Amino acid sequence: MRPDSSETGKLDLSLSVAELTAQLVDIESVSGSERPLADAIGSALAGLPHLDVHRDGNALVARTDFGRAERVVLAGHIDTVPVHSNLPSRLADGLLYGCGSCDMKSGVAVQLRLAAQLTAAVRDVTYVFYDCEEVEAERNGLLRLSRARPDLLAADLAVLLEPTGAVVEGGCQGTLRADVIARGERAHSARSWLGSNAIHAAGGILDVLRGYAARQPIVDGLSYHEGLNAVGIHGGVAGNVIPDECVVSVNFRFAPDRSTGQAEQYIREVFDGWEVVITDVAGGARPGLGEPAAASFVAAMGGAPRAKLGWTDVARFDALGIPAVNFGPGDPQLAHTRDEHVPIEQIQQCETQMLAWLARPA
Amino acid sequence: MRPDSSETGKLDLSLSVAELTAQLVDIESVSGSERPLADAIGSALAGLPHLDVHRDGNALVARTDFGRAERVVLAGHIDTVPVHSNLPSRLADGLLYGCGSCDMKSGVAVQLRLAAQLTAAVRDVTYVFYDCEEVEAERNGLLRLSRARPDLLAADLAVLLEPTGAVVEGGCQGTLRADVIARGERAHSARSWLGSNAIHAAGGILDVLRGYAARQPIVDGLSYHEGLNAVGIHGGVAGNVIPDECVVSVNFRFAPDRSTGQAEQYIREVFDGWEVVITDVAGGARPGLGEPAAASFVAAMGGAPRAKLGWTDVARFDALGIPAVNFGPGDPQLAHTRDEHVPIEQIQQCETQMLAWLARPA
Repeated sequence: MRPDSSETGKLDLSLSVAELTAQLVDIESVSGSERPLADAIGSALAGLPHLDVHRDGNALVARTDFGRAERVVLAGHIDTVPVHSNLPSRLADGLLYGCGSCDMKSGVAVQLRLAAQLTAAVRDVTYVFYDCEEVEAERNGLLRLSRARPDLLAADLAVLLEPTGAVVEGGCQGTLRADVIARGERAHSARSWLGSNAIHAAGGILDVLRGYAARQPIVDGLSYHEGLNAVGIHGGVAGNVIPDECVVSVNFRFAPDRSTGQAEQYIREVFDGWEVVITDVAGGARPGLGEPAAASFVAAMGGAPRAKLGWTDVARFDALGIPAVNFGPGDPQLAHTRDEHVPIEQIQQCETQMLAWLARPA
Repeated sequence: MRPDSSETGKLDLSLSVAELTAQLVDIESVSGSERPLADAIGSALAGLPHLDVHRDGNALVARTDFGRAERVVLAGHIDTVPVHSNLPSRLADGLLYGCGSCDMKSGVAVQLRLAAQLTAAVRDVTYVFYDCEEVEAERNGLLRLSRARPDLLAADLAVLLEPTGAVVEGGCQGTLRADVIARGERAHSARSWLGSNAIHAAGGILDVLRGYAARQPIVDGLSYHEGLNAVGIHGGVAGNVIPDECVVSVNFRFAPDRSTGQAEQYIREVFDGWEVVITDVAGGARPGLGEPAAASFVAAMGGAPRAKLGWTDVARFDALGIPAVNFGPGDPQLAHTRDEHVPIEQIQQCETQMLAWLARPA
């Protein structure tokens, strides 16, 4: 299934899209450690003379110059969440398992297969491969590219090959992270009543989270689903000291009918009375499927579009004024799970549909 | 106040007990780094021909051989918790400030003054100075001595000169540490309802702690006060992952009418339904003030004895079958605080009372 990619760190773009996905999965690329994979993609692209390749850190941009009236960006991140005893990849019953198989190395494999095969096309294509999508926004490779070289990203439409189950997903939810802090007073734990336990006090923060009811609004005809969760907690000084601080890190996923400012205000209201430090925020994107370029892509791919619940860089293209949609292989509900996998057939279907859309006569 | 002790690392046992305390405080001796202080004590004791001195690592045992029928151990640890911008020592309004002034270099100064002055006594005396009391039990110097040379510790009564405000404190509470673990299931935080949040679940553990009512039992006539507290909490995988584990580290301080086994059983009952891992346990000691040797000491020191709430090495002597009490200068509630200090008058009082008890005709 995977001809020694993990040994050599090389990619073979002549393999099937499924085999190529396995090669990509087997080159570990947790956020911040994408260099070996970026090197492998760079080497593979360097062998394709119809592409003009730029590298920026661990991000790569490869552009065709077919002289077409329309240009489309096909974008994907090459990093993954931490490995969870789910490497190397394995194939079973038509499903490819492994860290990043679904989110989103199968999408990256489709990009690479299109890059290799489309030596001519009805639209010019800009292939974008970038790092650090799974971590805080400031480290995001696409953000870095959009600041340093926005000219490289210019296009009439961007398609992000994030997992959507091969259905067009419109817009995306925003994401906000905040530290909610409980304070107390230190004391020796043998005489705890002389102090005030900040970890016990943080129980009140967890009460808020446990009592939270998610809003599920309809925006531009698509149904979103918000969420508010603790993603980290820490507190403690020593084994015999009543702790004076406990920090709960929360993640708020909000529908695109809230601005980032409104999301922040909501979080401050929910945790009224607690110290709240906003650490990270990225706005969502309204579906925008009425835009001509997006509408043509939806029509070509078929099916009924859905709301995208996870934040994706659709929002970043939206902010650059480029209509953008999500469309890629894999069930988004499997992203970041230990059991992450992708149906081989769905990767093949995405490759076939996009190849037909780009190769088809205008 | 302190004739160049910090320069020379030497102790002058002819100084007043207050001046000697300042010399001891100014030789920094955080747990694990007691060598300079142990060297200084060793040199000072070597000049006293009525003592037989043994050294074991950074612990010292000095014994008289007056041929008396009774032998008493006077014991103190020479280490301190980490310095907290509270060195060197300073004297203000009759109070000596500085790391270890209260816990327990003033007690050690009393030991050393008695050692120097009591060239004859009504009881034989064993002076014990030991290291690593402020850290995990396995490193404790008294434990090491009790294993290597129990013969050196044999006595009819042990007095630990831990801070008690110059009141006899009987027994001590036990201490148990455990990790109480909440589990969940990972998922992407954009679709949190597909997972199960372990940090939210840990709210149930904090509910138990917040609802805990401390038992305050009377044991052998003394009133104890138990305590159950979180001393640490941690959980979280990444900023966009619903966490599958949250660990709450708790510290249970228990009265000496519970054995370590009963304390463990109680914790397992309190956290019934949660995963509980016991990480550390040290039993308490019943007051034992009815024992003849202890009763005579209590009578000689005067005042109404109190319960000792913090764990002390009284428990270790108790386990060796030696009645033991706590009696020393300093307010125990100031131990481990940055503002730690001791009233000069209280150090002098302890020296005077104990000198009278030992020098008094039988």
